[in-house]
Amino acid sequence: MLQELFSPSVQHWLDLIGIFVFAISGALMAVRKNWDVFGIAALAEVTALGGGVFRDLVIGAVPPAAFTDLGYFVTPLIAAALVFFLHPEVERTQTAVNVFDAAGLGLFCVTGTTKAYDYGLGLTASAALGLATAVGGGVVRDIIANEVPSLVRWDRDLYAVPAMVGAGIVVLCIHLDALDGFTSGLAVLTAFVLRLLAMRYHWRAPRAWNRRSAGVEVTEETP
Amino acid sequence: MLQELFSPSVQHWLDLIGIFVFAISGALMAVRKNWDVFGIAALAEVTALGGGVFRDLVIGAVPPAAFTDLGYFVTPLIAAALVFFLHPEVERTQTAVNVFDAAGLGLFCVTGTTKAYDYGLGLTASAALGLATAVGGGVVRDIIANEVPSLVRWDRDLYAVPAMVGAGIVVLCIHLDALDGFTSGLAVLTAFVLRLLAMRYHWRAPRAWNRRSAGVEVTEETP
Amino acid sequence: MLQELFSPSVQHWLDLIGIFVFAISGALMAVRKNWDVFGIAALAEVTALGGGVFRDLVIGAVPPAAFTDLGYFVTPLIAAALVFFLHPEVERTQTAVNVFDAAGLGLFCVTGTTKAYDYGLGLTASAALGLATAVGGGVVRDIIANEVPSLVRWDRDLYAVPAMVGAGIVVLCIHLDALDGFTSGLAVLTAFVLRLLAMRYHWRAPRAWNRRSAGVEVTEETP
Repeated sequence: MLQELFSPSVQHWLDLIGIFVFAISGALMAVRKNWDVFGIAALAEVTALGGGVFRDLVIGAVPPAAFTDLGYFVTPLIAAALVFFLHPEVERTQTAVNVFDAAGLGLFCVTGTTKAYDYGLGLTASAALGLATAVGGGVVRDIIANEVPSLVRWDRDLYAVPAMVGAGIVVLCIHLDALDGFTSGLAVLTAFVLRLLAMRYHWRAPRAWNRRSAGVEVTEETP
Repeated sequence: MLQELFSPSVQHWLDLIGIFVFAISGALMAVRKNWDVFGIAALAEVTALGGGVFRDLVIGAVPPAAFTDLGYFVTPLIAAALVFFLHPEVERTQTAVNVFDAAGLGLFCVTGTTKAYDYGLGLTASAALGLATAVGGGVVRDIIANEVPSLVRWDRDLYAVPAMVGAGIVVLCIHLDALDGFTSGLAVLTAFVLRLLAMRYHWRAPRAWNRRSAGVEVTEETP
Repeated sequence: MLQELFSPSVQHWLDLIGIFVFAISGALMAVRKNWDVFGIAALAEVTALGGGVFRDLVIGAVPPAAFTDLGYFVTPLIAAALVFFLHPEVERTQTAVNVFDAAGLGLFCVTGTTKAYDYGLGLTASAALGLATAVGGGVVRDIIANEVPSLVRWDRDLYAVPAMVGAGIVVLCIHLDALDGFTSGLAVLTAFVLRLLAMRYHWRAPRAWNRRSAGVEVTEETP
């Protein structure tokens, strides 16, 4: 039932848009790292599909959607080809990419949470898996690229919180039996807008208390 | 049957203790890396639950216990909160943390092996998966933190061997049809004590033969 | 049916050879990194079995073959022991190792593709998963060793393309209903020879267009 909140074709197109923008971010990272064309394609695929594949393995929905729907597989390749030929132009539109990435984040945390709940997970676990779906691809992208995941860096704008809020709204609506196309859309929109605000006003998350006084290594700080 | 070696509630509490101490080690690593509060929580979760999730995916026990038991999910968050507010105090108790980590190691290698055998794996595969359950979370922690896994570093005290011995005792007992609460407890205790001894006397594993004479890079050596 | 292209025992021996040579490459990497004997064994196991475990999890063939067939588990340990005692000699035979690795690549892309198709995946998804089976172990090896995956580096000889061609021939033969022992062997051989040629003539993949003119970081370049 929950899967039918949006009409199948609308849902599918929203999914493909989310996959596309995540793939763009993966492909751009590969270009900045000076990788070859297969590295660009591979990182685009992994970034776009990693979160969803992990979710599907956890809930037992095998083979994962990424391997049964040809559109999910081909979309990252299109994104990779675009970045391969036009990366200076794509990088110039970094703001647009960030906006689309925020849209993907909002969308994936909501669809990830509803799919997990559909497969019988509890409310908290569904929200946690929805969050993992939304941020998982980016974490795998950064690990493969040998970077500290941008998700955990204190000097990056909030990324997890918007997805948490979106997933939280979904499970709250499920709990209140109020999840429908409208409230789902509201959850997507809330996560999307929160992420845009976090980027606009550089909202950061706190580090551990007494961080400065403690004699800890700070080698991960970047200028 | 094997799952009932300990009474369910005792087993559950032992699991939660193991999860808690592994989560502490993940959260402390995140603080040392200067990550923000979400990085601390995420690394605590992954370190505590990573080994068990991998085991459950391999044996087909989906969704993994980490996603069906709320206590498994919440415990690492409590550990993360504790480290967030009190990390200087927690670090000062590093010895205590190490002792608890050794207890978690002993416990997880035994429960991982018995669960794998319960799901139909052979004796050798069960022991291997029990070992992977015990050390898996720590390896994922180090990979995400962009460190060489402490498991494989020659300049760290033995970590894999105690877990191997614990898992080995379990499969030996299964083979002899002698696995019960007593022998299981003995396996946990043996792994636990071996790890404590390895830390106390700095037992190290050998590197490859002729290591010195071979003209190999030694960049991973740390002072 | 597809699984019976080769007689079971021939197939099994080919699998073990592929696992052995991949394990050698993992163990050698661990020796170069100066890891201890457990690091050598662990990296041999992960490199040899990682791609196949991922494939089996995705298609729902749990527990993965690596955990049900004792030979799959023991073979990497033999390779690790060999490298542990004889690594200078093994490194001196790097060319031979590379030839075997090419054989493993060709074999795994073909068996991975056919197994995925047997489990109901579509042609494109089967080829993609066959490719992942062939290159997956090497990527995990490089991630654990904290290296940029050699798969994506522009300054390394082509590795993905031969596996793609091999997987492509298999799905083409399936589509034409012409897959048998002969055409499968041809696919293995084509991938094998292409990889040998790539190493012999240092075929490289292109990087993104305008790479030089764009002001991007090139820190990943190695001499």
